[in-house]
Amino acid sequence: MIKTIYWTDNAVVMIDQKALPHDEKYLTCRSYIEVIAAINDMTIRGAPAIGVATAMGIALGMQNLPVSSEEDLKTSFYRICDEFSRTRPTAVNLFWAIERMKRCFEEKRGAGIDIAKTALVTEAIKICEEDITANRQIGTHGRKLIKNGDNILTHCNAGALATAGYGTALGVIRAACEEGKEIHVFVDETRPVLQGARLTAWELMRDNIPATLITDNMAGFLMKQGKIDLVIVGADRIAANGDVANKIGTYSLAVLAHEHNIPFYVVAPMSTIDVDIKDGEEIPIEERNEEEVLYICGARTAPEGINACNPAFDVTPNRFIAAIITEAGIAAGPYEETIKKLFAKSN
Amino acid sequence: MIKTIYWTDNAVVMIDQKALPHDEKYLTCRSYIEVIAAINDMTIRGAPAIGVATAMGIALGMQNLPVSSEEDLKTSFYRICDEFSRTRPTAVNLFWAIERMKRCFEEKRGAGIDIAKTALVTEAIKICEEDITANRQIGTHGRKLIKNGDNILTHCNAGALATAGYGTALGVIRAACEEGKEIHVFVDETRPVLQGARLTAWELMRDNIPATLITDNMAGFLMKQGKIDLVIVGADRIAANGDVANKIGTYSLAVLAHEHNIPFYVVAPMSTIDVDIKDGEEIPIEERNEEEVLYICGARTAPEGINACNPAFDVTPNRFIAAIITEAGIAAGPYEETIKKLFAKSN
Repeated sequence: MIKTIYWTDNAVVMIDQKALPHDEKYLTCRSYIEVIAAINDMTIRGAPAIGVATAMGIALGMQNLPVSSEEDLKTSFYRICDEFSRTRPTAVNLFWAIERMKRCFEEKRGAGIDIAKTALVTEAIKICEEDITANRQIGTHGRKLIKNGDNILTHCNAGALATAGYGTALGVIRAACEEGKEIHVFVDETRPVLQGARLTAWELMRDNIPATLITDNMAGFLMKQGKIDLVIVGADRIAANGDVANKIGTYSLAVLAHEHNIPFYVVAPMSTIDVDIKDGEEIPIEERNEEEVLYICGARTAPEGINACNPAFDVTPNRFIAAIITEAGIAAGPYEETIKKLFAKSN
Repeated sequence: MIKTIYWTDNAVVMIDQKALPHDEKYLTCRSYIEVIAAINDMTIRGAPAIGVATAMGIALGMQNLPVSSEEDLKTSFYRICDEFSRTRPTAVNLFWAIERMKRCFEEKRGAGIDIAKTALVTEAIKICEEDITANRQIGTHGRKLIKNGDNILTHCNAGALATAGYGTALGVIRAACEEGKEIHVFVDETRPVLQGARLTAWELMRDNIPATLITDNMAGFLMKQGKIDLVIVGADRIAANGDVANKIGTYSLAVLAHEHNIPFYVVAPMSTIDVDIKDGEEIPIEERNEEEVLYICGARTAPEGINACNPAFDVTPNRFIAAIITEAGIAAGPYEETIKKLFAKSN
């Protein structure tokens, strides 16, 4: 099994997703600043994985603190949390993980510095383990929606690499394969950062799941030709009404799937659902550096001087989504109600 | 003005579109075999430009023939035509140009070898000049559809480089700019061969037309945000019913434009309309080498061993097309009738 991120001996170790698929190497972060850098430069990416990295990064930052009073500990803790909150704005799992760590910290107030530090490490490891468990449960729920012989389109990477392990969208695909269903996956390369070509293709090859790489602009034509039976993607943030922020290009796929009467499924842990946000309009969309568009694999594609824009995510309205698959179960519209029911069930 | 292709002194000279935007260099073909290679490897591409290259390539092949009888001349002529017909299957301008050259050749039968050879060169140059004239007329018609302040999305390159000069979709944009309209163009990078990032961006920069490069999967989200007023693309073959084959990704854009009530315009010379083909289902779609998908600018993106597919074109049904803009005028649906009227007008 792919180990995306783990805690070891006062360090956070993560697979270097910028080096994949050609190099499988691991980055050992010994300071929280290195974890923040890894989140910012997408050495680690994927909403649930960012959540785990944030929790472990906070725990690591606290471990290394040379403080002598609980008051200093608190000040530093909130400062470190604040630094993590300013890394990537769209994936809500980051903010969810910070809240979990804050609750843990507050529960240990007054118990002493070392106990608080240890509790934060324990909590971060627990968040990591819970994510893998959730993905397994998601897979068990979601595989019911996949039929033997299905051709599945996926976008970006919602795999083991986007999570603590196993994956959300790819977790459902893995779970379907594990029960013997024969499926084939079309993988959108997912410009600009090529998470599909580099990461999803790599995961599927490792698991011997038949896959075909396509450029992002081929999906519509394949749907028209009847070559795609369903679309499965992950999510970076799901609003209370079921609107979904996910990797740029997801919205276009949802419109195309709707046009061709192809079910469009979103797969995510409950930690990706942000009930404080009414609908997708309120989800902040990260605009990344235009160089990601102007360069590919280090090579400049476009002439010097041209502008580019680079929204990293888009928002898919709930009406295009056939179901949202979580560890608490599968929700269909009207999502305001069904998402509430999932939370009632999972609490 | 960009000179995409021209005839000179027993040679066909073309700008090397594989080297753009970083190098502006020219390839001088002294044999028809070199012209065929340039079409196959996309040193020259774009339906109207392929038509001109084919005509000039045939004329060049005949020029160099060491034949002594009209019978040998005829045999060689049809063989060369046949070789060109086996280069790229989708762009009908290639077959249209071959037919023009055949008519010219047949008209000169019996007049002598040298007269036939000269007539073929004259015809090829005429096809080139007619294409530029047609593009100017297209621009004059099409610019009426563009309003001051419009944000226009285009895909691939339907510019001077795709034609003998001036361009079809970009010709309309140029003509609108020439009459003082201030417009801004969003340029799809157009994977896998990046004609948007490399060629359209280069043309727009040269002409100081404001432009922003995007990845192909961003277009839908920009439409949803109200940032795109209209879409203009070229065509590789238009069926008698107005269905349009064009660069892969065009169909997805048309569906997205329809979803957002954004007009979707197709721009092409009459030579791109194939009245022998009833509808888009009959248009042959070229499947190119999968390495174009697996590599970008020489760098391998995906892991070794993964499959890719690479349809170079797709077909957009007529119902998604607001208008087809030609040198004979602008047609709207029902296209079976309006296309017939355009031909009646242009003959």
